[in-house]
Amino acid sequence: MSMKMDNLKKLFIHELKDIYSAETQLTKALPKMAKAANHKELQQAFEQHLKETEGHVKRLEQIFEKLEGKPTGEKCEAMEGLIEEGESLIKEKMDDDVNDAALVAAAQKVEHYEIASYGTVRRWAEELGETEIEKILKTTLDEEYSADEKLNKIAMGGVNVQAAH
Amino acid sequence: MSMKMDNLKKLFIHELKDIYSAETQLTKALPKMAKAANHKELQQAFEQHLKETEGHVKRLEQIFEKLEGKPTGEKCEAMEGLIEEGESLIKEKMDDDVNDAALVAAAQKVEHYEIASYGTVRRWAEELGETEIEKILKTTLDEEYSADEKLNKIAMGGVNVQAAH
Repeated sequence: MSMKMDNLKKLFIHELKDIYSAETQLTKALPKMAKAANHKELQQAFEQHLKETEGHVKRLEQIFEKLEGKPTGEKCEAMEGLIEEGESLIKEKMDDDVNDAALVAAAQKVEHYEIASYGTVRRWAEELGETEIEKILKTTLDEEYSADEKLNKIAMGGVNVQAAH
Repeated sequence: MSMKMDNLKKLFIHELKDIYSAETQLTKALPKMAKAANHKELQQAFEQHLKETEGHVKRLEQIFEKLEGKPTGEKCEAMEGLIEEGESLIKEKMDDDVNDAALVAAAQKVEHYEIASYGTVRRWAEELGETEIEKILKTTLDEEYSADEKLNKIAMGGVNVQAAH
């Protein structure tokens, strides 16, 4: 393996571990977000995304089996910051609808962090010729896009409109 | 103004201050990222995005003039975390091309954070009937999407391909 390939593979594994930490943190945050949501639609969206996120964690474990390594050992500080930001927002006493608008905003930041991360590792998997891993990562990336789109719809159709009137 | 509207407006202003802090931090990080880039195309992309980011800061100041308030007083810890993560990545000794692939990854996380943030405040501006502010925010949001797209093209067409061979 060339030095370039070796370096890229190290970076790829580092980034996958970072995502594993992010997803694991998210499985702990999503139940709290569901509990804090006032609109049933939003609550259900968080519950559904929790199930998906548990699936994403399993997929990453699968990937590490293929790579013959362990997914642990990194802590994603960016995700930690995003979750803390969301928690501090919902601690403020707010009208029910505005509380949900804040939850959607926090959740979309999380989704976009994941979209950027999976977009990157998917590209690197391709460059490294890891075709199977690339497919697994694409499946998750598509689910992250859908989750963001769903939050958009909830915000446009319900939470926000109600918050402003 | 109803309690809901009042709450949403407070949240809107809080989020705008957060973005102002994020953009200001980014104007300090982008020159370092340009300096750390090995590929001229990537270096120029960072330099161009610095100019755009300085424009985003000015637009936010315009918005706060309309809102008769000050943009300062919040610190965006998420952006601080994203920048730190990027800085720690490029401190590692890496092949030139892989170094640039890492820079692109860090920059895309930043872009996606901004896409999520501007997407949110743009929606809230609309709900609050702040039509002029909504237009200003949309202009910036479009530039953030373009910056991300440009980084995608650089990664697909150059940096990554070269990193893997």
